[in-house]
Amino acid sequence: MSVLHLCDDEPALVRPETSVADAIHVMLSKRVGAVGVVDANSVVAGIFTERDVLRKVALSDRDPASIQVREVMSTPVVLATPSTTPGEALAVMVDRHFRHLPVVDDAGRLLGMLSIRNLLEAQVDELTQQLDSLEHYVTNDAMGGD
Amino acid sequence: MSVLHLCDDEPALVRPETSVADAIHVMLSKRVGAVGVVDANSVVAGIFTERDVLRKVALSDRDPASIQVREVMSTPVVLATPSTTPGEALAVMVDRHFRHLPVVDDAGRLLGMLSIRNLLEAQVDELTQQLDSLEHYVTNDAMGGD
Repeated sequence: MSVLHLCDDEPALVRPETSVADAIHVMLSKRVGAVGVVDANSVVAGIFTERDVLRKVALSDRDPASIQVREVMSTPVVLATPSTTPGEALAVMVDRHFRHLPVVDDAGRLLGMLSIRNLLEAQVDELTQQLDSLEHYVTNDAMGGD
Repeated sequence: MSVLHLCDDEPALVRPETSVADAIHVMLSKRVGAVGVVDANSVVAGIFTERDVLRKVALSDRDPASIQVREVMSTPVVLATPSTTPGEALAVMVDRHFRHLPVVDDAGRLLGMLSIRNLLEAQVDELTQQLDSLEHYVTNDAMGGD
């Protein structure tokens, strides 16, 4: 399965010149913990997360309406592609303490935003299915079925 | 397994009169997304999360050093106990869109803070183990082993 299928349908995104206040409004209205920061060609320039708000904005004495996202976004960004496997993405996120990983095409354009929660939920679903089918096989076998 | 075993060893906590600025420092230094808010008897009064920072503080024009956590914490809090199962906790968190659930004793004192990420990771581990042992059984069976 491609990690792209685990992303929300429409990734939340802002431009580098978007104000931090507007970016926070996007996060709140879309109920996401991170937005992709993309240029005019949809190429990922960075990622702006709840953690960035806490680390760089909330205690800064600055007005979020007057800060551009480019000043406080996280960059450079580790990126996934549609050919990244869920296991590879999870390993990177656990290792680097990332909660989000942008998925991009060959030109670096944002296709989706992967969250560690979506990844873990998908892994639980997949393992449950594997377990169900294996238990079914074991049960049938024990009963002399096929 | 009790949900308590899935919590961090020392839950991050603050008092209701702690400033939001200090609470954010606790979240950053402990690398957690939520702190328990407890009274002098360790009884849970609320929970203060990254989401509260975004929703109630970051855009408020107020100085986080002059806001008490009690003014912006989330309350009332849904609580888990050591006898809550991981499945019950996960169901509540998914249903209510919570990322954190305080675990308390009979007197309401904070014992630990459960995160949906820890829960999902534990579920992945458990399912993987079940699958491994079942696959082992199936393999042995197919080979005429025990």
